Amino acid sequence: MAKRDLLSIDDLSRADAELILETAESFLPVLQRDIKKVPTLRGRTIINMFYESSTRTLTSFELAAKRLSADTMNVRASGSAVDKGESLKDTILTLSAYQPDIIVMRHPQIGACRLASRYTRASVINAGDGKFQHPSQCLLDLFTMRQALGRELDGLKVWIVGDILHSRVARSDIAGFQLLGMDVTVAGPPALIPRDVEALGVHVEHTLDRLAEADVVYLLRMQTERMAEGANFIPSLREYSALYGMTLERLRPGQKVMHPGPINRGVEISPAVADHPDTLILEQVESGLAVRMAILYRTIAGYDERPADERGAA
Amino acid sequence: MAKRDLLSIDDLSRADAELILETAESFLPVLQRDIKKVPTLRGRTIINMFYESSTRTLTSFELAAKRLSADTMNVRASGSAVDKGESLKDTILTLSAYQPDIIVMRHPQIGACRLASRYTRASVINAGDGKFQHPSQCLLDLFTMRQALGRELDGLKVWIVGDILHSRVARSDIAGFQLLGMDVTVAGPPALIPRDVEALGVHVEHTLDRLAEADVVYLLRMQTERMAEGANFIPSLREYSALYGMTLERLRPGQKVMHPGPINRGVEISPAVADHPDTLILEQVESGLAVRMAILYRTIAGYDERPADERGAA
Amino acid sequence: MAKRDLLSIDDLSRADAELILETAESFLPVLQRDIKKVPTLRGRTIINMFYESSTRTLTSFELAAKRLSADTMNVRASGSAVDKGESLKDTILTLSAYQPDIIVMRHPQIGACRLASRYTRASVINAGDGKFQHPSQCLLDLFTMRQALGRELDGLKVWIVGDILHSRVARSDIAGFQLLGMDVTVAGPPALIPRDVEALGVHVEHTLDRLAEADVVYLLRMQTERMAEGANFIPSLREYSALYGMTLERLRPGQKVMHPGPINRGVEISPAVADHPDTLILEQVESGLAVRMAILYRTIAGYDERPADERGAA
Repeated sequence: MAKRDLLSIDDLSRADAELILETAESFLPVLQRDIKKVPTLRGRTIINMFYESSTRTLTSFELAAKRLSADTMNVRASGSAVDKGESLKDTILTLSAYQPDIIVMRHPQIGACRLASRYTRASVINAGDGKFQHPSQCLLDLFTMRQALGRELDGLKVWIVGDILHSRVARSDIAGFQLLGMDVTVAGPPALIPRDVEALGVHVEHTLDRLAEADVVYLLRMQTERMAEGANFIPSLREYSALYGMTLERLRPGQKVMHPGPINRGVEISPAVADHPDTLILEQVESGLAVRMAILYRTIAGYDERPADERGAA
Repeated sequence: MAKRDLLSIDDLSRADAELILETAESFLPVLQRDIKKVPTLRGRTIINMFYESSTRTLTSFELAAKRLSADTMNVRASGSAVDKGESLKDTILTLSAYQPDIIVMRHPQIGACRLASRYTRASVINAGDGKFQHPSQCLLDLFTMRQALGRELDGLKVWIVGDILHSRVARSDIAGFQLLGMDVTVAGPPALIPRDVEALGVHVEHTLDRLAEADVVYLLRMQTERMAEGANFIPSLREYSALYGMTLERLRPGQKVMHPGPINRGVEISPAVADHPDTLILEQVESGLAVRMAILYRTIAGYDERPADERGAA
Repeated sequence: MAKRDLLSIDDLSRADAELILETAESFLPVLQRDIKKVPTLRGRTIINMFYESSTRTLTSFELAAKRLSADTMNVRASGSAVDKGESLKDTILTLSAYQPDIIVMRHPQIGACRLASRYTRASVINAGDGKFQHPSQCLLDLFTMRQALGRELDGLKVWIVGDILHSRVARSDIAGFQLLGMDVTVAGPPALIPRDVEALGVHVEHTLDRLAEADVVYLLRMQTERMAEGANFIPSLREYSALYGMTLERLRPGQKVMHPGPINRGVEISPAVADHPDTLILEQVESGLAVRMAILYRTIAGYDERPADERGAA
């Protein structure tokens, strides 16, 4: 049987994506119990191989694996053979000799996960590669929207605001939101919008004047460390914040606000918005656990079988 | 039901403290078995969030959690969102979205654990915050004394010797030793004794002339790295050692010696004292495991129910 | 009952070594199952104390412990009491107070593991100490050869090629290969061959002219970082590679190639050799898991009892 990777949102059909979301929903009761654990993946081995630091994603995948009773191993680039100049190919070959079921991988280079997949019989899950893709983030975003706005996402309008150019979250979300029938607008300073983004079928805005049309406002992290590196994509953080920072004044009541985190309070999001009940940032983190459990489960169990708790999805 | 934190020894009544000690005692047989594990906290999630490095405390909490069959996650400040400038509040909110049962937290700033507790439904256990508190250390010290000297600690005389000023261990121990009825003296060079320490009800000594009255001599670690930072609280380590370093000559036979570790052999403690049978340093480490199991267990099970192995404590 | 360490290959009799290899073989079916886990060491505690970075060895021991259902704790020198100047003795005494069953230890100094063993009731397994020994590597190398070449190793000829002088792998392998009756040749530039190596009963070659006699060619990693430190043991990596780098042209068909990893492609091994079916590098990694499970198991169960799946070994 061919292994099943999750390298990009584009690997999933709409039915696949919906199956993951339904599987995640079926795990929610587990996460509400006192004993938040099922034996589903007992004896399975999941290697988390993170070449970039991460609290959120690593913690979330690690905990998801533990909730499914899998054994996890964390391998970091620092302090490893990678430091000794070993190639990605050889590292993957080596780790694969342990016969893990899944390798969850974050890497600074675009395509690294796809390359890695060629050298291993383990399924590879892309936990973020360069500016390219971050599919589990997209799936948890979709799950969060379904939980907050109802299962039918078709026709919903979402604005993605900020540094589209450098964001793998934006790249994955555009594809995934469209896959489920949403209407996507990207907004931000011209220098931070990729030139050819309209070819993806999104609308482009350089101001927030028409933000009221959005059902969901999805803010991207302003990567202040990147800005400090002398790449002058914007005149200053202060100016960015004045033009695009999300404040309560800019929002219409009832609009949902999302952000992949970690947030910069006072830069892309005001503290009042960050802490507002219509802001779903913590719901996203919470969804991440159920969605990553579902991704791990589906990677091993396959995409054919329906969840036990069949809900008759469209 | 309100959650139960352990932020400071002052959060505990004498009955609470004794209940933890009795619970720890009930776990001792588990630690003597070949299979040192009970299913008590299976499926519970404990996050260890350490903003300062630590072998002893982190290892001890982690192993205590494993012996209770809980799932543990270690989050370090380095390599995490904290590095990206995320605020403590947002880090806690994020981790809380995973619905951990307990967050064990070490932080360089006084009050950080109390602040963290306001943002999470998880119970917070202070594993050391700045110079303020280290309550699990105090409880394991009390447990060690009970094991070595008998369960009745009332009226025992303990001298705490060394750098009282910078020590969260001293701050917790003074409170906890007094809570169980002990008579506490602090001794050290004037510059290392807080000015208002007598307000806490302790005696102050600047020499070891009357050390013979102590039943227990509790040495503090001379934080040589702090001394090197140019803060000239003492003329030199050599002089400190000459005046306050514990040698066999300075001790009366039968006096128990304790130290929270890691020790500086030849500075605050001579090798002969470190390795002497009346020195309880390794017993403290061993006690730490049982006591932290008890702290974790009581945090979840509550303080009302008595241990199964009821011993009819006072 | 006396504890059983594994500090050096010289600690093992031929029967002991063969028992470990047979035990490893009995674990192979476990590693082929979907659920790669046995409850053999449930409730046992294994501390991995690594004073040097390592992906391969740490990961392998950690996963071996998990496959046996043991609890593992990783302690690194960095971020620990070791940083605060604690002596090895005190660190070992402290960790031993947790009553681990086994301490797996890597340390840059020769003899550190033997010293550590004197201070603990736990069994100590040497996972590499300085240039001295790396016994689990030797055992997995033997296991790999038995799997590839048949259980009878007596009389097989193996050439170890490269930097013998700085290699603990070479030191362990020479002893272990001879223990099982193999004929060992070391080959490399004179400056990288220890002067007295012939006293160990090995042949010495400074060219690869007679390499065709070898059944197994065991390449050592060229520690390029060590060479960069100004120690001019060889004129240049380029020259080393020209004289000793393993290419398909230098090999006779059917010769097996081994390497402890991580490899330097294009230095001591050509990419074509690295990826050749007669090269056993990944088999070595895979063997490492079964062999380390066997080492951990034998350390606790002892060396008298035979494996359940008795195969009537010679």
